Amino acid sequence: MSSSGFDVCAIGNALVDIIAEASEDFLAAHKIARGAMTLIDAERAAYLYDMIGPAVETSGGSAANTVAGIASLGGHPAYMGKVKADQLGAIFRHDMHAMGVHFATPPAPDRRQEIHEVKADRRGGAPTGRCLILVTPDAQRSMNTYLGAAVEFGPADLQPDVIQDAQVTYLEGYLFDRDEAKEAFRAAAKIARAAGRQMALTLSDVFCVERHGAEFRALIKDDVDILFANQNELLALYETQDLQQAVAEARKHCKIAVTTRSEKGAIIASGKDTIEIAAEPVARVVDTTGAGDLFAAGFLFNLTRGRDLDACARLGAVCAAEIIGHYGPRPQRSLKELAREKAA
Amino acid sequence: MSSSGFDVCAIGNALVDIIAEASEDFLAAHKIARGAMTLIDAERAAYLYDMIGPAVETSGGSAANTVAGIASLGGHPAYMGKVKADQLGAIFRHDMHAMGVHFATPPAPDRRQEIHEVKADRRGGAPTGRCLILVTPDAQRSMNTYLGAAVEFGPADLQPDVIQDAQVTYLEGYLFDRDEAKEAFRAAAKIARAAGRQMALTLSDVFCVERHGAEFRALIKDDVDILFANQNELLALYETQDLQQAVAEARKHCKIAVTTRSEKGAIIASGKDTIEIAAEPVARVVDTTGAGDLFAAGFLFNLTRGRDLDACARLGAVCAAEIIGHYGPRPQRSLKELAREKAA
Repeated sequence: MSSSGFDVCAIGNALVDIIAEASEDFLAAHKIARGAMTLIDAERAAYLYDMIGPAVETSGGSAANTVAGIASLGGHPAYMGKVKADQLGAIFRHDMHAMGVHFATPPAPDRRQEIHEVKADRRGGAPTGRCLILVTPDAQRSMNTYLGAAVEFGPADLQPDVIQDAQVTYLEGYLFDRDEAKEAFRAAAKIARAAGRQMALTLSDVFCVERHGAEFRALIKDDVDILFANQNELLALYETQDLQQAVAEARKHCKIAVTTRSEKGAIIASGKDTIEIAAEPVARVVDTTGAGDLFAAGFLFNLTRGRDLDACARLGAVCAAEIIGHYGPRPQRSLKELAREKAA
Repeated sequence: MSSSGFDVCAIGNALVDIIAEASEDFLAAHKIARGAMTLIDAERAAYLYDMIGPAVETSGGSAANTVAGIASLGGHPAYMGKVKADQLGAIFRHDMHAMGVHFATPPAPDRRQEIHEVKADRRGGAPTGRCLILVTPDAQRSMNTYLGAAVEFGPADLQPDVIQDAQVTYLEGYLFDRDEAKEAFRAAAKIARAAGRQMALTLSDVFCVERHGAEFRALIKDDVDILFANQNELLALYETQDLQQAVAEARKHCKIAVTTRSEKGAIIASGKDTIEIAAEPVARVVDTTGAGDLFAAGFLFNLTRGRDLDACARLGAVCAAEIIGHYGPRPQRSLKELAREKAA
């Protein structure tokens, strides 16, 4: 890595997380898909927010959590995603900059501030996106995402020089839910490949994979070097119940396929090599939000430093273990120190 | 308590807390008063926010934390305080309502929404107040408060029927920093006394006491039945270094004087009685924000249920112990269940 370059450039939906505890009964009563990410509109977001208990707010967004983790490890990542010029947007932006993440995507303007153009029938535009995360007593998180201003991210928001300067460009599968973002996604892949850089993709969510299976498979075949998925996402991608078969498929199409399996650890398939690692022990699992995002952070951090796959996977497991020990998807301690302690 | 009435009505500065870890060096470099609450203006708030690390946001405000605690214990409290009709204000309001706190103070309007009145030179008004809380490795919190819309709270915002319906009206000493709020404070005391209700006051902060010592002493003599202070605040109030002497003074002027002493527990003086209780053990003290607020919550909850002072103090200690075991000043578990477990 050149000293001026980025290790990872991530592109994703910029979201603030609103985290509350909830019972299984609450999920059932409000028809919330357990353990999944469900896209919701503004009305449903307002309704659910009224229904949930007291909450805590923290910057989130899957790929954003990953670069936050890389920054906490001492890396030099960049991020692209769209917030609004509002209070939640300011929180998201602050946290990125405070961690040392390069984040220069201009916010969607608050149109009410353009006094000279104000018309009575003109709205201020969608606010910063947010994810209502309900954590059940088993530490499972069920996510309800109102994308808000994040939907305004498109190809024009790509900064080609940043992608060219990043060893790995990392894309969040959730972007596939919007055509404009998908277009940006493909344009980013083109830029990265032309610059001889690597492309990584995380599949994000089973239902997201089911919505876009064929397109994901085509993209992975053509443009993805490093694939991150959890076991269920990988099975959904290759429409099989056989994990070995799914891993064999992934191995054919990308250089490195990382399959995370919660408390069962992870499988890394690369060429003829297969590495299985155990999960890092955790005293008490509080909230699994961000586990996959932080596994990717640890993995990519060591990968962009030329470490072997075993070391990549091990640091991924250490970072994931930190995040599930507390509420929220951002590290609560220096991952750099943690990595040193764990010799990862 | 009648079934329709409130146990406690609290009046305070409505704030959202922005919590970040900080080193001692950071406090020194930015001239932040250690362990204190410092009032800051919008410019300083923006500057400090730029400087601090990644943060987590949660509803706060001293008296608001206390009623949140009472609600979590299963009580029926009310709150009065001013937020703005903005995103942080919506978060504050949501958390109050989600806990079952009666909170009906109208927000300061976002004047930009009054399209027909918009003029180019008119600002939207101050946003919801926020408190930048820096937590050092010793779990001490140093608070930097930008009051924002909270300064718009005045006598016109009092709801006399709510005060008349509350067994105890609880006031936050921080309100003494603003004349309008002080006026509301005195008007609330008048309403409560006329209705034969009790008045409680928390002194809030040593520097706040030093700013308003004479006025606090006069108010306590005339209008306060139940006084909450930590040891340093009580010493500052009576301008002495002798705790026994300070407690003796407080005993003369109010029915119940509660002095909290961090890990040394608390002293309750009432008439001829003096009760000393030990602090509740805590596995690890993470963040002392809200310790005094939650002690008051437990104390007032049992007091308004006719329990003796020993039981009041013990529940105060249990609630304070919960809050200092994690980041943020709002309970992360049901205090009602905790009280049952601890038989408090």
